Amino acid sequence: MKRLIEEFNLNLDLAVEAHDLLRGAAKVEIPGVKEEITRGESTKTTTITILNQEGAKALGRPQGIYITIESPPLKINDPYVKAEIIAEMEKGMQLLTKEMLGPQDSVLLVGLGNWRATADSLGPKFIEYSPITRHYYQHAPDALVEGMRPTSGIAPGVLGITGLETFEVIKGVVEKIKPALLVVVDALAAADVERIGTTIQMANTGIQPGAGVGNHRQALTIEGLGVPVIAIGCPTIVSATIIANQAIRTYCMHSGVFYNDSKSVDAIKEILSYFSGNLAVTPKEIDDIIENTSRIIALGVGKSLFPGISEEQLVMYAT
Amino acid sequence: MKRLIEEFNLNLDLAVEAHDLLRGAAKVEIPGVKEEITRGESTKTTTITILNQEGAKALGRPQGIYITIESPPLKINDPYVKAEIIAEMEKGMQLLTKEMLGPQDSVLLVGLGNWRATADSLGPKFIEYSPITRHYYQHAPDALVEGMRPTSGIAPGVLGITGLETFEVIKGVVEKIKPALLVVVDALAAADVERIGTTIQMANTGIQPGAGVGNHRQALTIEGLGVPVIAIGCPTIVSATIIANQAIRTYCMHSGVFYNDSKSVDAIKEILSYFSGNLAVTPKEIDDIIENTSRIIALGVGKSLFPGISEEQLVMYAT
Amino acid sequence: MKRLIEEFNLNLDLAVEAHDLLRGAAKVEIPGVKEEITRGESTKTTTITILNQEGAKALGRPQGIYITIESPPLKINDPYVKAEIIAEMEKGMQLLTKEMLGPQDSVLLVGLGNWRATADSLGPKFIEYSPITRHYYQHAPDALVEGMRPTSGIAPGVLGITGLETFEVIKGVVEKIKPALLVVVDALAAADVERIGTTIQMANTGIQPGAGVGNHRQALTIEGLGVPVIAIGCPTIVSATIIANQAIRTYCMHSGVFYNDSKSVDAIKEILSYFSGNLAVTPKEIDDIIENTSRIIALGVGKSLFPGISEEQLVMYAT
Amino acid sequence: MKRLIEEFNLNLDLAVEAHDLLRGAAKVEIPGVKEEITRGESTKTTTITILNQEGAKALGRPQGIYITIESPPLKINDPYVKAEIIAEMEKGMQLLTKEMLGPQDSVLLVGLGNWRATADSLGPKFIEYSPITRHYYQHAPDALVEGMRPTSGIAPGVLGITGLETFEVIKGVVEKIKPALLVVVDALAAADVERIGTTIQMANTGIQPGAGVGNHRQALTIEGLGVPVIAIGCPTIVSATIIANQAIRTYCMHSGVFYNDSKSVDAIKEILSYFSGNLAVTPKEIDDIIENTSRIIALGVGKSLFPGISEEQLVMYAT
Repeated sequence: MKRLIEEFNLNLDLAVEAHDLLRGAAKVEIPGVKEEITRGESTKTTTITILNQEGAKALGRPQGIYITIESPPLKINDPYVKAEIIAEMEKGMQLLTKEMLGPQDSVLLVGLGNWRATADSLGPKFIEYSPITRHYYQHAPDALVEGMRPTSGIAPGVLGITGLETFEVIKGVVEKIKPALLVVVDALAAADVERIGTTIQMANTGIQPGAGVGNHRQALTIEGLGVPVIAIGCPTIVSATIIANQAIRTYCMHSGVFYNDSKSVDAIKEILSYFSGNLAVTPKEIDDIIENTSRIIALGVGKSLFPGISEEQLVMYAT
Repeated sequence: MKRLIEEFNLNLDLAVEAHDLLRGAAKVEIPGVKEEITRGESTKTTTITILNQEGAKALGRPQGIYITIESPPLKINDPYVKAEIIAEMEKGMQLLTKEMLGPQDSVLLVGLGNWRATADSLGPKFIEYSPITRHYYQHAPDALVEGMRPTSGIAPGVLGITGLETFEVIKGVVEKIKPALLVVVDALAAADVERIGTTIQMANTGIQPGAGVGNHRQALTIEGLGVPVIAIGCPTIVSATIIANQAIRTYCMHSGVFYNDSKSVDAIKEILSYFSGNLAVTPKEIDDIIENTSRIIALGVGKSLFPGISEEQLVMYAT
Repeated sequence: MKRLIEEFNLNLDLAVEAHDLLRGAAKVEIPGVKEEITRGESTKTTTITILNQEGAKALGRPQGIYITIESPPLKINDPYVKAEIIAEMEKGMQLLTKEMLGPQDSVLLVGLGNWRATADSLGPKFIEYSPITRHYYQHAPDALVEGMRPTSGIAPGVLGITGLETFEVIKGVVEKIKPALLVVVDALAAADVERIGTTIQMANTGIQPGAGVGNHRQALTIEGLGVPVIAIGCPTIVSATIIANQAIRTYCMHSGVFYNDSKSVDAIKEILSYFSGNLAVTPKEIDDIIENTSRIIALGVGKSLFPGISEEQLVMYAT
Repeated sequence: MKRLIEEFNLNLDLAVEAHDLLRGAAKVEIPGVKEEITRGESTKTTTITILNQEGAKALGRPQGIYITIESPPLKINDPYVKAEIIAEMEKGMQLLTKEMLGPQDSVLLVGLGNWRATADSLGPKFIEYSPITRHYYQHAPDALVEGMRPTSGIAPGVLGITGLETFEVIKGVVEKIKPALLVVVDALAAADVERIGTTIQMANTGIQPGAGVGNHRQALTIEGLGVPVIAIGCPTIVSATIIANQAIRTYCMHSGVFYNDSKSVDAIKEILSYFSGNLAVTPKEIDDIIENTSRIIALGVGKSLFPGISEEQLVMYAT
């Protein structure tokens, strides 16, 4: 798969997938990387810590903590499992933000992605369902409740903002309103269709919008923005090249045929070169999945930023 | 591929693809099926006529005329090619509706699909961009221009209609307003990603919403509705199972390995069974493609229903 | 005001306002009309029963029961008052539908109005937030819960349906799916801005879409559709002519000047004849008011159609 | 009316109305203010220049040029009049930006207002229909055509941005992308319903979002942003207080009754105090009016920023 990732310039957005890929079937330990797994009734939480530059190089991503919550009922917004997922998100947020955030510190929520392309609209939907309070501090302090803090939200890829780089808009806003923390939500690409709508990743490392190899000065990171950035995502697509590769490998295995990486890449290039290989695989019900996951993520973030505020109240403060 | 289609209950929405598949590399003639090809500067138009039951059985679709217009610039709404595509659509509409439609006969436009899932929103977008005039006949006849006819539009899968079968809604409306013709637009599934946004199919056979094997009494056909039905579509997705199968076949060919259909189906089932195999492949720019193709289809249909009315005027009568 | 109503062809959508106007300052009894008032902690409920043709003629609307729930916190979706309003709606629905509806009878929800004009989008928003279950009975019975019934929803004025009369679409659908009851929600016009977003009217008399004097055969009534129709509405506008008239009357009163009805009509015609007098007054926050009232009405209707189902579950069955 | 404006903190957004009010029936000259009128076949253009501080104080708005284009067919997007309106806008833009803008200078388009409240959505709609090219310069220079310049667009009041002051967002973005000019479009309030959808005002003075007396350091002006700002608007509402006042004045005139300003204010306060007097009058067809005027304004601005580029091409570069 490494060959595939290079050839097609793929993102493996989930640290847990990158780690699994690197460890291989033999599950070797990766130096500089620590993994811990806890299980709840309906959730499995994997915390990967990249401890040093050696681990960062091996996993191809920055040093930091990557928390992955897995729960298949996430995608249907199962009312019986929702509370457990939200509680795991709260625990995760606490680990990622500890000591970073005073009770009255302001937080800027950022929803990346394009709301006109369903599979890419997780971020804008997150903003839609998140409690936004900063304007009340200035214009209607009586509407605020004990336990709140100022939050504002921006979805730079929605209809109204175009011809602008995400980084430019966010950097401009951050310099004006000077939040203590950014929480950035984006749709992710996974390597396995089973992860679509069933996995939440939270990391304290920030995010590269549009991803790929990039200029870190232009990234939504503490280096680029001067403010700590929590990145949260949920897979909504798998690259068609990965599906094609999995099909070939699985066929070879079933047929007892030797699998050749370079011939696989050639075959995939032949069938998927149109649209520059930018083909995504999504389930038909992707609109419901986005709706459900964005609501739960908004509640999980909301609950951790507004301790003690009920779910019903949080919904009231959404836009 | 026949095995694949059966196993995964796939639609091959394009007659031209079904025909090519059946004819094979040797390009054998299919009894009861006639194919004619014409080429313009930037378009290729294939007219397949299924002449009798033998042809219908062979191609797995009803007797009738299937016109396919292919033009890669369709998906970018290229202003220099647009006029040629629209002219081809007008010729096609004339062939499909001849003698069926008097100059003042009313037409009901139907846009199938779910506007909340980008790749499925071609039909609703078509309605949005189509000239609708029926209400002027009753309420503002002065707003009408020589060459017009009464048109009305319905997109039964949009937000506002739920818990209802498409057929029930359309049949109910048809019985009330008694149009002389239905023009039904829907997003199609192709077998080749290169067809996404580059091919328009027009047929005089009606359509099975949700497709698959179905009850013809419940289909959007002259048998089900009592009114002739022109079906128009543009591919917006390819099933992930087809991509996986193409990858395996291409790999086998490149590697000189014997390809086994049944082992391919097993491999695909293993990797794509999640989401019941309902996984669609779309290009990232699917939102732009839908926008562009729906506008051109609306103009092509509009121009043929309102002869002599300019493009600018047609746009003015859109909702 | 009677003169005004005739001159400008105004609707007084609320029975309670028509009744108050008729009774005048002296609060005379109107023969054939009965009024009952009950008060809750934050709600006032007025039940007007038009007992016979004499009452119907006096009030200018059909015989039947008109329930008006007034509660200023309705418009902000106050979480502490919401439950009381919903409970009043449940009581009202019980009174209006009694013996009419068996526990498994199916109900068609109809949301009138144009979702692109904020003040007219109450009906479409109501459909968006209502629990819709009919498709589960056919396709996924396991997803249903004890206490449910089949509901479907239609918003004939949304984007996707044009050039069609509301009555034609609804009649067509009713004939196909044969529901036991219709619940029709629409934005209303009041005579007092204080009623905007603070009053819900429920009646068992059906509704005239587009209102005004109309053909009862074309109305959303049991006579027109063959099915009982509950009409529910909330004022979202006041006609500008009424505001102008109130201004003149109040000025005359304050100034001790004699008020002349015919001169008032002349003055109003002079300033408001543009746009044919179709000028509506709305508060700036009308988008929030529509959002809040449509959610509460959807819950009130949902609770009464699905006895014993929790609010959280109802929301899950919304589209 | 001056009393009314103060009491209810009203905006008179149109310089031409403020000027007319000040000049009174006698049409006195206002020192420091120059007015020029030109007439086309279907348009009337009034250019008011506030020459000095004396004029600025008299008219209650900054020194600068205010161009008002009046044309009743604007609101129906009349295809025969559109070209004339666009040509008048081009002439206006030339006068307002002269020598300010080099042929390759970049321009930031700003659409103020809330897209969820129809009457306030002119700005966001303008952005939707405007040609945006800045991203092509960086990512796809081949897609550019001779005569273009870099444009970007932002609609800070759309769904995705909340809890943030308009000024903060715009100032932040301006500091990052350093445009040579801002063009800001917003819905205006007029004093006469006949102006709704029929008048365009263009000024080189910038704009105060949310208006009223404000802090000029926080305004979208060259002082606040460090960049010249062209403000363009079209009336979409009239304050209900103005309608009420007109009704009273007209009634008094018709009745030969003496009109008393202070009694009028009292009467209006009594009937319109609810919703803090923030009640707007709009025609029922406001959604169509916004659609039509925003398209024409986008073309007028587009044509003047992209000289020689056809209307059809401009539409292709819209988002």
